[in-house]
Amino acid sequence: MNYNLTVLGCGSATPTSKRNPTAQLLKMQERFFLIDCGEGTQQQLRIAKTKFSRINHIFISHLHGDHFFGLPGLISSFHLLNRTTPLNIYGPPELKTWLDTTFKVSNTKLVYPLHFHPTQNKEKSLIFEDKKVEIYSFPLKHSIATTGFLFQEKEKERNIIKEKITEYGIEVCDIQNIKNGKDWISPKGKHINNRELTTDPKPSLSYAYCSDTAYLKSLKENLDSPTLLYHESTFLKDDEKRATKTKHSTSEQAAIIAKDVKAKSLLLGHYSVRYDDKEVFKEEASPIFKSVFLAEDLLEFKVSHNSITSRDLNK
Amino acid sequence: MNYNLTVLGCGSATPTSKRNPTAQLLKMQERFFLIDCGEGTQQQLRIAKTKFSRINHIFISHLHGDHFFGLPGLISSFHLLNRTTPLNIYGPPELKTWLDTTFKVSNTKLVYPLHFHPTQNKEKSLIFEDKKVEIYSFPLKHSIATTGFLFQEKEKERNIIKEKITEYGIEVCDIQNIKNGKDWISPKGKHINNRELTTDPKPSLSYAYCSDTAYLKSLKENLDSPTLLYHESTFLKDDEKRATKTKHSTSEQAAIIAKDVKAKSLLLGHYSVRYDDKEVFKEEASPIFKSVFLAEDLLEFKVSHNSITSRDLNK
Repeated sequence: MNYNLTVLGCGSATPTSKRNPTAQLLKMQERFFLIDCGEGTQQQLRIAKTKFSRINHIFISHLHGDHFFGLPGLISSFHLLNRTTPLNIYGPPELKTWLDTTFKVSNTKLVYPLHFHPTQNKEKSLIFEDKKVEIYSFPLKHSIATTGFLFQEKEKERNIIKEKITEYGIEVCDIQNIKNGKDWISPKGKHINNRELTTDPKPSLSYAYCSDTAYLKSLKENLDSPTLLYHESTFLKDDEKRATKTKHSTSEQAAIIAKDVKAKSLLLGHYSVRYDDKEVFKEEASPIFKSVFLAEDLLEFKVSHNSITSRDLNK
Repeated sequence: MNYNLTVLGCGSATPTSKRNPTAQLLKMQERFFLIDCGEGTQQQLRIAKTKFSRINHIFISHLHGDHFFGLPGLISSFHLLNRTTPLNIYGPPELKTWLDTTFKVSNTKLVYPLHFHPTQNKEKSLIFEDKKVEIYSFPLKHSIATTGFLFQEKEKERNIIKEKITEYGIEVCDIQNIKNGKDWISPKGKHINNRELTTDPKPSLSYAYCSDTAYLKSLKENLDSPTLLYHESTFLKDDEKRATKTKHSTSEQAAIIAKDVKAKSLLLGHYSVRYDDKEVFKEEASPIFKSVFLAEDLLEFKVSHNSITSRDLNK
């Protein structure tokens, strides 16, 4: 199994003709999660030919415009397209005030339910859970209240060995228990250890999203071995003073964090407009952390336990 | 002289991968006027390679998202680019409430002055005037308070005939009076009629912008012979019932209005997503009104008294 991550915008602060402000679409376990929603996100979703009506959960890291000014347009388009499924939005409490004002001044009464879930940036917190996925918010360090998000597949079922079903004559009603890791006791009372009947499940994958943040040493308290870590790298080491002042990170700092939290791979993004060529970010991070990828508008990453591949949705 | 009109978005309601929501940039008498500001307008301004810091006046016709959701992003980008020139925004009073809330929740204190000028949709009203241009708002008929805007060059100076200056020995200090249309009296008391000294000025051009509106017969009370009339044509005649219900217009109705107000040319736009091919709008309007043009994203029109030419800024 794998998950897909589509970068809808990889720029920072002011968009350019080539880089949209921040937004990413994570497709994990057949669920569509939108992470941040800068201006133009709905257009990018269309260009990427995404079935965007399947987005039921939107996560906003903080209230700087380049991370949330695309929300009203997307919410309105869902309305105009007669959506009926509830939409869940997770973000700082003031976001609700703003959305309420937006719909009041534009005289919009949404035709579908919108559920708002306020986040806090004091401590790591479970904000979503269903059968297959858990999502946590955790504090980042920026000039305004900001959280990261951790998307975590739940532990998967063990794989039953088909030959053993036949060998022992195991009945269908017992199979789910065995998949869940339980031992099996035959009708005659023989105890069979689960490890004899099953093989290990596929590893559970995770995606950690660290949007705007200064270098934050304590991240390792909240993140442990994510399959892929997205960490902003607005600047290069040459501009470390500026990064510290504006509470952003350099590419080197992102690489140090990736090492600290034992990420399998690192995805960089949120590049300052001062850098035309984004390869320099990879060059700076690679000596510290081996597996580095670069975010780019409309690039889709396919992430599995063993590999990450990408394809350009513009083509 | 001419003016330039760049269509930044020609779509309606929900954007598509090819049509952005409504925004237009009018360059008249070296002034940059932004008319409506749908989501993605700042990106379109960048793609069009516009010197967009020169925009000092923004006109918002009404508070449906596809006409104003791009404002916060543009205003914020001006802020991040350290603009110092005041920015003037003209629009419905509730727009100020929304902008104030936007900057409050995003903890933004603009580094430049923003002046808000509330509009009303009861009667035609002069909302801007300087040495060369007058701008009026006027009521339209839509499901929410909506105004159109009329951009009118002031009457230009008469052209002085150079040979006459020499012939009569007219002094420099008298020339401005003659350009303004006054007769000239020689030092010896001879009265020379202005018409002998000057030729007619170039015609003053105008641009009338009628954003979302139902067919509004009374428009001719507020518009008289605009050089170019932009009139929405969300639907075709086949969908007239839907147009009436949603308070939009058909292409045929736009053509009737163009005839009524004695426009020299008509520009259609705000096409519903149901029409892939926009040529059908021109086909419907042309039998009623001769000079019809079609709005298209990133198409720039050069408008003079005698001609309208266009070029595609994508190329």
